[in-house]
Amino acid sequence: MDRKIRLGMVGGGPDAFIGAVHRKAAALDGHFDLVCGAFSRSYEKSKETGEALHLDSERVYESYDQMFEEELKRPENERMDAVSIVTPNHVHFDPAKKALENGFHVIIDKPITFSLDEAKELEELTKSTGRVLALTHTYTGYPMIKEAKHRIAAGQIGDLRKIYVEYPQGWLASSLENEGNKQASWRTDPEKSGAGGAIGDIGTHAANLAEYVSGLEITHLCADVRTTVEGRLLDDDSSALLKFGEKVSGVLMATQVATGEENDLRIRLYGSIGGFEWTHTDPNTLLFKPHEEPAQILRAGTGYLTDLAAKNTRLPAGHPEGYLEAFANIYVEFATAVNDHFNGSYKSADDYDFPDAAEGVRGMAFVQNMLKSSGSDKKWTEFKV
Amino acid sequence: MDRKIRLGMVGGGPDAFIGAVHRKAAALDGHFDLVCGAFSRSYEKSKETGEALHLDSERVYESYDQMFEEELKRPENERMDAVSIVTPNHVHFDPAKKALENGFHVIIDKPITFSLDEAKELEELTKSTGRVLALTHTYTGYPMIKEAKHRIAAGQIGDLRKIYVEYPQGWLASSLENEGNKQASWRTDPEKSGAGGAIGDIGTHAANLAEYVSGLEITHLCADVRTTVEGRLLDDDSSALLKFGEKVSGVLMATQVATGEENDLRIRLYGSIGGFEWTHTDPNTLLFKPHEEPAQILRAGTGYLTDLAAKNTRLPAGHPEGYLEAFANIYVEFATAVNDHFNGSYKSADDYDFPDAAEGVRGMAFVQNMLKSSGSDKKWTEFKV
Amino acid sequence: MDRKIRLGMVGGGPDAFIGAVHRKAAALDGHFDLVCGAFSRSYEKSKETGEALHLDSERVYESYDQMFEEELKRPENERMDAVSIVTPNHVHFDPAKKALENGFHVIIDKPITFSLDEAKELEELTKSTGRVLALTHTYTGYPMIKEAKHRIAAGQIGDLRKIYVEYPQGWLASSLENEGNKQASWRTDPEKSGAGGAIGDIGTHAANLAEYVSGLEITHLCADVRTTVEGRLLDDDSSALLKFGEKVSGVLMATQVATGEENDLRIRLYGSIGGFEWTHTDPNTLLFKPHEEPAQILRAGTGYLTDLAAKNTRLPAGHPEGYLEAFANIYVEFATAVNDHFNGSYKSADDYDFPDAAEGVRGMAFVQNMLKSSGSDKKWTEFKV
Amino acid sequence: MDRKIRLGMVGGGPDAFIGAVHRKAAALDGHFDLVCGAFSRSYEKSKETGEALHLDSERVYESYDQMFEEELKRPENERMDAVSIVTPNHVHFDPAKKALENGFHVIIDKPITFSLDEAKELEELTKSTGRVLALTHTYTGYPMIKEAKHRIAAGQIGDLRKIYVEYPQGWLASSLENEGNKQASWRTDPEKSGAGGAIGDIGTHAANLAEYVSGLEITHLCADVRTTVEGRLLDDDSSALLKFGEKVSGVLMATQVATGEENDLRIRLYGSIGGFEWTHTDPNTLLFKPHEEPAQILRAGTGYLTDLAAKNTRLPAGHPEGYLEAFANIYVEFATAVNDHFNGSYKSADDYDFPDAAEGVRGMAFVQNMLKSSGSDKKWTEFKV
Repeated sequence: MDRKIRLGMVGGGPDAFIGAVHRKAAALDGHFDLVCGAFSRSYEKSKETGEALHLDSERVYESYDQMFEEELKRPENERMDAVSIVTPNHVHFDPAKKALENGFHVIIDKPITFSLDEAKELEELTKSTGRVLALTHTYTGYPMIKEAKHRIAAGQIGDLRKIYVEYPQGWLASSLENEGNKQASWRTDPEKSGAGGAIGDIGTHAANLAEYVSGLEITHLCADVRTTVEGRLLDDDSSALLKFGEKVSGVLMATQVATGEENDLRIRLYGSIGGFEWTHTDPNTLLFKPHEEPAQILRAGTGYLTDLAAKNTRLPAGHPEGYLEAFANIYVEFATAVNDHFNGSYKSADDYDFPDAAEGVRGMAFVQNMLKSSGSDKKWTEFKV
Repeated sequence: MDRKIRLGMVGGGPDAFIGAVHRKAAALDGHFDLVCGAFSRSYEKSKETGEALHLDSERVYESYDQMFEEELKRPENERMDAVSIVTPNHVHFDPAKKALENGFHVIIDKPITFSLDEAKELEELTKSTGRVLALTHTYTGYPMIKEAKHRIAAGQIGDLRKIYVEYPQGWLASSLENEGNKQASWRTDPEKSGAGGAIGDIGTHAANLAEYVSGLEITHLCADVRTTVEGRLLDDDSSALLKFGEKVSGVLMATQVATGEENDLRIRLYGSIGGFEWTHTDPNTLLFKPHEEPAQILRAGTGYLTDLAAKNTRLPAGHPEGYLEAFANIYVEFATAVNDHFNGSYKSADDYDFPDAAEGVRGMAFVQNMLKSSGSDKKWTEFKV
Repeated sequence: MDRKIRLGMVGGGPDAFIGAVHRKAAALDGHFDLVCGAFSRSYEKSKETGEALHLDSERVYESYDQMFEEELKRPENERMDAVSIVTPNHVHFDPAKKALENGFHVIIDKPITFSLDEAKELEELTKSTGRVLALTHTYTGYPMIKEAKHRIAAGQIGDLRKIYVEYPQGWLASSLENEGNKQASWRTDPEKSGAGGAIGDIGTHAANLAEYVSGLEITHLCADVRTTVEGRLLDDDSSALLKFGEKVSGVLMATQVATGEENDLRIRLYGSIGGFEWTHTDPNTLLFKPHEEPAQILRAGTGYLTDLAAKNTRLPAGHPEGYLEAFANIYVEFATAVNDHFNGSYKSADDYDFPDAAEGVRGMAFVQNMLKSSGSDKKWTEFKV
Repeated sequence: MDRKIRLGMVGGGPDAFIGAVHRKAAALDGHFDLVCGAFSRSYEKSKETGEALHLDSERVYESYDQMFEEELKRPENERMDAVSIVTPNHVHFDPAKKALENGFHVIIDKPITFSLDEAKELEELTKSTGRVLALTHTYTGYPMIKEAKHRIAAGQIGDLRKIYVEYPQGWLASSLENEGNKQASWRTDPEKSGAGGAIGDIGTHAANLAEYVSGLEITHLCADVRTTVEGRLLDDDSSALLKFGEKVSGVLMATQVATGEENDLRIRLYGSIGGFEWTHTDPNTLLFKPHEEPAQILRAGTGYLTDLAAKNTRLPAGHPEGYLEAFANIYVEFATAVNDHFNGSYKSADDYDFPDAAEGVRGMAFVQNMLKSSGSDKKWTEFKV
């Protein structure tokens, strides 16, 4: 019998965005109890958050180091099992490493680390420690994305030929980082975000989605990475031609200066006998476009979907599920893996349908390859990990 | 300081739909702990559900009577504070009445009761006991519905003239109740559902939404209530002309035999200088249509919305929220009222933005007036409570 | 071999809207030559229009009486064959009657006449004279409407149960008739428009569309016809419950005060095994919604449509056709009938796919029945012709 | 006073697609009379077409050479004024050249010629002969495209930063050219189509649209041009990164193997303070997205548009216009230029809002530059004419 997992959190203090998302996603389906946290570098802020969350004040910590130390002292049937890491990118690696080394399972926001080398080290650590690590590439949590993946694998659109993936946002069209916006500040700061701006923040989502749905890997890319807003320290706009081997090509666009756009990640895949289209604006719909036949509107929650989609859907058709539910799907699958670990049946993250350290490594490599290509006069850059 | 509310549940066993919805909605924002339940008339099934929810087996009860009795014996700082009632309609009144009489707060699925008289009695009980009762008319929980309500009250579309509200579903287009579908069975059974079929199940939502957004009350109606599928025992399709006083008229459609439709509740309101349109298929959007100017796409999570919408939104624009989040908005507001009760500042449900017993009474009256009108040769039936 | 038809026009002077529509629709497919006209009561304006149209000035007339007289004097191989009547409603009957009596074929804008009696007299005249009369209920000219009609007749959605038809416009939300708008002026003037305002101008389109697509006739209605804008002399808003016999019911909405709406005629039909939806905003799409299967997006210009749709489409899929093309489809079919008349093979309008005098009579009866019902305390009014 | 223009046609025989489009577009607004034609290399087919069009059989010719010769013999007030050239690409240059040299005005389908050199020669000829030449890049004829162009020029979205233009079709996803499809055959035949397949057929439209709306020119591109379907002789899929100078970048996609897609040309332009989006699937709508404000739905036929849009719209809002109307807008502007030529006021095509030889040259250069870039290992290829 599965049990509730006791969760701790690193980051997610008062002004954070993604911390609250993780907490709601963890809470939704009843598989986790948030029991402790080190929510902020400021102990005052951490306590403020802990109180708002009705946590035992003893388990609100000054630092993640303290949290790991103190929690280890608690009896096993009370101690934190797993930790959510929801800090800015430059504070991903250290807590994740220490958590794994101390026997805690880890669920971590993307991109997995600050640098590719750190990502590789984490991947190694998941192997050496045997602990579970999940990476919250939210968009692969949507049921209709899973439906598309399944149908493509089953040959429903024939041999893949073309993949278009785009991720337009507009919120950084102006110099928000100079107007006191905390989200904008760290995301455009190379010391906190890493080498990539938009390519790290959203480009990695787009690349991950394309690879997840198609079941293919980007082998070459040709990128134009730009900083559009004057004075900005990291890229805010990028486009790339892609190859997934020699037979399949694609285009990727990821920008945070598409003024007026919100968060409209969109993917289209075309094969020899059909196509699929999904957009985040209407995530419960997947368009299936068979050649010379009427397009079909596939809808989440219906009876004709695959088990994979059904498993990741809570409600009947016509009851919209959204971003938090997709996020929660990753937490649910993470919970399954952690419970399997408790029960001794966990082997590796590959057996589960959540993004893991391997995807994290590819994400960091994506950032590096995009920058390399953009700086090069050569058309094609091989995608190296 | 607010505290977490200890929640019990009546109904919501293994095959139930709405029970799980209530649990997820209650869990999402961290204001509730589910501590006990009487999930099914079958104790076995109740225990099965309790285990799946990781509940203390001592607090999984054989009946709600037992639950109320046993919980009252517990110390105050452990005892259930409030109860979710998620049974079929014919088992709404009794547990709600007993809960209120025993000092528990109540959150209850719609329609509030089996009959109008029961609804009125509950309304009285909320007054005499001073306890909080919230009714989960989900759709009024959507932020863009609240935005529309606010803007209409502020005069943004001038004097209201016309309200169209429609609620088409198609799932009962065939005789599902004879194919072992549990949801269909009780909803088409007059002994469990009450006098209304579709008009009770979804018509009440439509009427409630129209009144909530417009701030007006239906004063007259002219209904055509039908049973379309042969052998069905309750109505499955209805239409009505409406008056909201003499100046504002409307049309209401609620059907469960609109073959191929999912759950597309939709409302359009037109005034002398503009109109609003909202549809459940795309709930994060509200179309604003000023006369002779471009229509505006108002979106949840943006900076230009009212506080009311912002308060009921968790995510930035472009991160879709859905049905569970709207549901959770009602739970959040219920939690506020219950905490106010703890703190001695609660006066009446009218001070909170959730549907309460008064809306429950109007819903039951709606069913009765629709049936009365449909059976009458007279064009207009006055809406009587 | 068919030949080009020589067309005259009554109405359609400088400020007219629908006259230009008729001219473009007639020109589009090359079956007509506009050879003469009496475009306005003012001879000056008529000449102005004639010149702009590059007409022979001798064939621009002072009145339609003069036009009929003079054209009859011309040799047969030069003489006008048919006349387009595009005047306001109160000047429909007289020119149509005289045209038929003088042997000319007639294509006439809707509503067919000022009164029901006139409509019946015209219907009789088409029989006694054996001349062709077509009525431009534009919306039945759309290929996807024809596709829906064909598929319903073929049983694709099973037994029809429900028809929703709505026609919301917003242009008359303010008192435009008092601001010098010519279109608004005559349409709200009972001396020019007839007994119906919105119900005549657009309600007749909605009713005609519902009957055309379903293949059924309205047998009873229950109407709420209103004048919303102060001082207006005719109705500007209406709703009605409908019966199409005992088994099929419906709702009709036709309003010109749905502020911010343009011209979004929309029809939804539901049967026992599927539904169809079409909206004028996206006229090249027909949604087909089979029960418990994915909805299909049927598109004009594709290879999988029926011959009826294909015949009324000029372009491959993805090349939008619109209002003028739908209008032109009626002209094309009218041309076929007129050429058949030339060749001696014309029997009656029933053999052609255009609205004729019979639809004109039903349209005028619709106006009369709506008004009768709206003034009555009885719920149901039998639809009498 | 303007007069009707007497039009001849080269190409457009029985199986042609675009010939009929030109004829309908020319007919729609009454500015042209089709008086003669050389519709096919087969005289039989040419006569068949002439008869179907009710042409004088004397003016249906065996060849365009004969047509030019014979028409020149006719008196000036009867003689053809202008010629539509609607043949496959390899038969564009010769008739166009001879027409201009013989004093006829020319309206010609795109791409303008078979090769870039021919295009340049035609451009020279328009200058030396002073005759009018219009090129039917249809999509620039849409009113909402013109609205976007105007508003961008007026600074409504600030400094342009990003242009995405895409043109996905799916009809060539299978080897249609080997199944007897005439349209597919010549378009995939390098002897008839020229060096470009999809890049010539639709890529030129996309490039032209991007340059027209933005008012900028592509200066560099980085292309991946592919032949996807085995055995096909020309490209059927392409993507390119674009530069419009150093400050503005873009992405262009043009493919005929996006299985299931119809003809969904789409453009998005983003500037420092707003964005625009237009798609051919819904051509009467232009989305305007100001930064941090609600998006606006701009609609053709409304009162708030610019004169440029209004001039290119025939109907009030909500009455859809489509492809033929956009096409006809080019014919109307061509007619104005030709009449100005008659009246002696014509100077050059630059004074008119239709695509001319200069755009034709850029289109041919686009094909050449795309192929050059695609064959190169260098990332950026300068766009040379």
